[in-house]
Parts: sequence; structure tokens; C-alpha cells
Amino acid sequence: MTEQKATNVFWHDGEVTREDRFGLLKQKGATLWFTGLSGSGKSTVAVELEKQLLMQGKLAYRLDGDNVRLGINKNLGFSADDRKENIRRVGEVSKLMADAGMIVLNSFISPYIADRDIVRELHAKGDLDFIEVFVDCSLNEAEKRDPKGLYKKARAGEIKNFTGIDDPYEAPANPEVHLHSDTMSLQEEVDILMAALAKRGII
Amino acid sequence: MTEQKATNVFWHDGEVTREDRFGLLKQKGATLWFTGLSGSGKSTVAVELEKQLLMQGKLAYRLDGDNVRLGINKNLGFSADDRKENIRRVGEVSKLMADAGMIVLNSFISPYIADRDIVRELHAKGDLDFIEVFVDCSLNEAEKRDPKGLYKKARAGEIKNFTGIDDPYEAPANPEVHLHSDTMSLQEEVDILMAALAKRGII
Repeated sequence: MTEQKATNVFWHDGEVTREDRFGLLKQKGATLWFTGLSGSGKSTVAVELEKQLLMQGKLAYRLDGDNVRLGINKNLGFSADDRKENIRRVGEVSKLMADAGMIVLNSFISPYIADRDIVRELHAKGDLDFIEVFVDCSLNEAEKRDPKGLYKKARAGEIKNFTGIDDPYEAPANPEVHLHSDTMSLQEEVDILMAALAKRGII
Repeated sequence: MTEQKATNVFWHDGEVTREDRFGLLKQKGATLWFTGLSGSGKSTVAVELEKQLLMQGKLAYRLDGDNVRLGINKNLGFSADDRKENIRRVGEVSKLMADAGMIVLNSFISPYIADRDIVRELHAKGDLDFIEVFVDCSLNEAEKRDPKGLYKKARAGEIKNFTGIDDPYEAPANPEVHLHSDTMSLQEEVDILMAALAKRGII
């Protein structure tokens, strides 16, 4: 038999539970869902939050278009059905990772309320925290930033169905956290998120 | 700014890296893929390994038909194409979880070499450890155990395309770990797996 090393883990009969994992990590698994326009700063705040969580010894993981579109969702395009399936799969992956104990940080434009609510519902059924973070930024400001030059292309008609230009963005009616990225500093945003995590006993 | 609590985490510029997460957890993320006949004991050894890892303070997570077929793969059936997509998605989820730092324990019959090799390839490309664990058990013994009564149904023709009866099982030619569940004790199996993890610096 192997030696008992982790002092915060208690032996019990039966299979390892979610609570065992949360106890080991000294955190609760949860999903934070950053939604907002392209260029609103979703990834910027997720990257900074991840860093400051790590400095506190908390384990987070980011999912975004980069590691999802090339992997689990590589057989999906941009039709309405595919976009919905894209978000559904990300939701299921997040749920597994949160159950495993991770603080999952998802950055997706995810413009439709119905799709985001599917992920919310998945987590509710799994008795896992789901925190919708509305990264609110005026279209004017997002378009001015245009970090990837996408608004310019959309205005020129080179990209079709671009959220905010010729496709709608449905803002959350009641997000758990509402950030105003065009007026708040990055550290203010992180502080608000840290407080929201602490309030729910996630960290 | 938040306080630096984790002494094994070092500050650096830029985004959080895989190495940061592995350092925090004091383990390397990796995927163990348990393959073998129905009734061979794949889940039994995965459950026991998970428990003994937890007792050493190591974070593991199990993926199997139960949490995958009802979630990320709920829109997949049992056709050849769907089986292949089923394994592919599990492979992609495992890769994300291993990158996050988890020791992922997958129990799937996964009868085809080509499908398992897709997952192996995914991990190789991502520079992540992939350990194929062949849970070897004679058909005779697996059928005698028949924990879910499935062999009986397959012999009676009530289930079609059942692996080992009217569908082939392609044994791994060169698995990283080869367990003989019909002759080894459960603890012997776990000890072999622990040694394999230690040898690769995963634990």
C-alpha cells in the first residue's frame, strides 16, 4: 500500500468523490464564462485572472477559440447549428473540468442567450458553479481597438455575419459579474472576479 | 495585488504555462488509456488507482462511458463513424485535461488499433504523455465474470456487434503497460501502474 501523504485527504470507502478532489486542491471547481463583443477584452482579463489565481496557488485553465476550434470542435464550422454545438461541447468539457476541480475560464463571444443558458443549465444539473461574466464594452470602443483587424474586414464586407456588425449580440440580462472593460482598469476587473470567487467559496 | 502563497510557483512575465500548473500540482499531466474486453476489469483498476493516487496527494480524473456518453458525446450512437468520433472527442478532452495538469484515467473498450492510435497521436503532437494500458483478460474469463450480463445477451443474439463475440477486439501490439487481470491481483496491477507513472516523472 502507498503512503498517505496528503494531510487534507481523508480515507473513506468507495470511489473518490468530487469533494475529495476539491479538498486536495483547496478550491472548488467552477466555470467562469466570459462573454462579450470581439475586442471587448475577454481574453485579456481571463489571462490576468489565471495568473493571479496561480500566484495564490489556485489551479485555473482557459478554454478559448485557439485550443477548442483546433481540437474537440475541429469538425465544426460557423453555421448556426455548428455554433450551437460548439458552445454545447465547450460547456460539457467545462463541466468535466470543473467536476475535476479546475477553475475553468472560458472566453467566447457566445452572442446568443439561449446557447449560454444551455451551459448554465448543464452546470446547474451537475450542481457546479457557473458564473457568467459580461465583459461589457461599447461597440464603438471595441471597433476602435480592433486588435485583430476583424471589424475593418466586416465593415468592408470581407467577413459576413460578424457579431455587432451584421449579426446581433444578445447581452446577458442578469450576469453574475458585469465588467465594464472600457472604463475599469484590468486590476479592478480582476479584483471584482476574485471577490466573486471568494464569496462563493471557490477560492 | 494578491499575495504570493504558493511557494513552488515562480513569477514570470507572460501567460501561465503548462509547467506552472504542473509545478503547482507537483505532478505532470498525462493520459492513461485502459483498453480491453468488456468485463476485463478496466474500470476496477482505474478506480483503485485513482484512490491510491489521491492518498498520495495526486489529482486524477476518470472518463468512462458513464460521464461521456451522457455528456460531450450524447449526440453520438454506435455506428462505426460515431464510435470513432466518440474516441476522438474523448482523446481531445483528455488532452486538454492532461495539459491542465490532471492524470486522466480513461476506461473504454476501444477495440480498434486505429482509433487508439488517433488519441496517441494527439498526445504526441501536444507533447503530453500517453500510456496505453492493455487490460488483458481471456474471453473465457471475461465471459464467466459477465458483470453486466452483456455476454449472455450477445450469445443469445439480443445484442449485435458485441466486442469479442461478433465484433473483433484488436489487442495492442506494443502497449506501455500490459496487465493480466485474470492472473494478477488488483494491488499488483496498481503497483505496476504506479511504477510506470513514477518512471515517467508523472508522480
